Amino acid sequence: MQFISETVNDGVLERLFELDVNGERVPGVIWTAANSSAGQPVLLMGHGGSQHKKAAGLLGHARKYVSDSGFAVVAIDAPGHGERKQSAETAKFVAELQKKMAESQPVGELVTVEMARLASQAVPEWQATLDAVQGLDFVGAQGSVGYWGISMGGVTGVFLAAAEPRIKAAVLGLAGLFPSYKTLAEVAAQVTVPVEFVLQWQDELVSREAGLALFEALGSREKSLHANMGGHIRVPAFENESWERFFKRHLQIQKAG
Amino acid sequence: MQFISETVNDGVLERLFELDVNGERVPGVIWTAANSSAGQPVLLMGHGGSQHKKAAGLLGHARKYVSDSGFAVVAIDAPGHGERKQSAETAKFVAELQKKMAESQPVGELVTVEMARLASQAVPEWQATLDAVQGLDFVGAQGSVGYWGISMGGVTGVFLAAAEPRIKAAVLGLAGLFPSYKTLAEVAAQVTVPVEFVLQWQDELVSREAGLALFEALGSREKSLHANMGGHIRVPAFENESWERFFKRHLQIQKAG
Repeated sequence: MQFISETVNDGVLERLFELDVNGERVPGVIWTAANSSAGQPVLLMGHGGSQHKKAAGLLGHARKYVSDSGFAVVAIDAPGHGERKQSAETAKFVAELQKKMAESQPVGELVTVEMARLASQAVPEWQATLDAVQGLDFVGAQGSVGYWGISMGGVTGVFLAAAEPRIKAAVLGLAGLFPSYKTLAEVAAQVTVPVEFVLQWQDELVSREAGLALFEALGSREKSLHANMGGHIRVPAFENESWERFFKRHLQIQKAG
Repeated sequence: MQFISETVNDGVLERLFELDVNGERVPGVIWTAANSSAGQPVLLMGHGGSQHKKAAGLLGHARKYVSDSGFAVVAIDAPGHGERKQSAETAKFVAELQKKMAESQPVGELVTVEMARLASQAVPEWQATLDAVQGLDFVGAQGSVGYWGISMGGVTGVFLAAAEPRIKAAVLGLAGLFPSYKTLAEVAAQVTVPVEFVLQWQDELVSREAGLALFEALGSREKSLHANMGGHIRVPAFENESWERFFKRHLQIQKAG
């Protein structure tokens, strides 16, 4: 893990970093309280499709989790996103997506399959990032780890929470199951940690049925569905506060000593 | 409105009262802060079937809404509940319900129709109660009014929120729509205030489909569905806090001047 820059703003310390994972350079960012000590909970935040590690919505939440709750928050650019080069597969997907949308065809399945493809690459990148972050003297491995991600970040989160036992709680959503693509259902069944699941009742990318089916498929004994009115990007602001309370309920603080 | 008793406990003042509505004596209770002044928001709380105005769960929430948020909280015994005499119709319903349950038949529709019957009687009782409460010098009519009720209290709340424009926000749920009983859907469509809707994913009284259909039928532009794992009476404790925040978002305090 190589640090690129370090800036402080309103008591939140932002460090940009790069990490080599399987021959790819993964750019990331970690936010902590300027006066943080090791042992705080770690929250991994997966951005949405076409966004990046410092997208406006994610950045605002991240800073709030640091200021209000003392978490260490980590984001990385997803494969083909942010500072990373778009792959030929993603370029092909984007062209197909634009064609389908121009023809007013449903796109949920196409989007989900592409997100799942990116997620299988993102999981080892997140795991390597978490290894590195827990090795930092100002974070450590004592605090428990949560994951937040909706839309593309939600699909990534299903794969990551299924694969990585260090994840103890996850906010997921704006993603769905499609009968012709079985993999996501099988992976979702392996998720066992508490989940708060975000669904938009008039989501134009993920049908209500597909979203409810993914919520249902999660193996977690404790899971809550929060559905609100409006389209894919219209999640109401009060859900942000609910996510923060969810993570505070589930992520333990253990100061190193 | 005739006051029966007045007790203070931990800063919460509880007044029992009785009110004559259409020839029936309706017993009720109002909780306020011991040091309250007029203008606080008023929260009406409708208890569940077979329960009463001071049922343990309701009482705990009521005291918290008074202590934490300074609301005036009001509960009344529903028709045939608490101190009120059970009607012949309700006795018949209970016998039918027990028979169906003994035969493992679905009971959602039977329960909903009975709850709706009681709700049509309860609505004018709630309206008369609210008239009387807003006439009290220690409450007044300046604060806005909310309604909380799930299960039977949820069905009552759909009818009340549709009929009574003073209700500005409602927590409802644990109730559902059944295709053979159209009235509830028609009434739900007339509800336009913000709603937080409670659904239990394995509700043994209200099927998931029926619950989702009632949420969908509500006419409100702003409505949130909170679904959790478990049966009818297993609503997790963290939802209590969510209801309180919902009411604090929507109920305005206007001190009388």
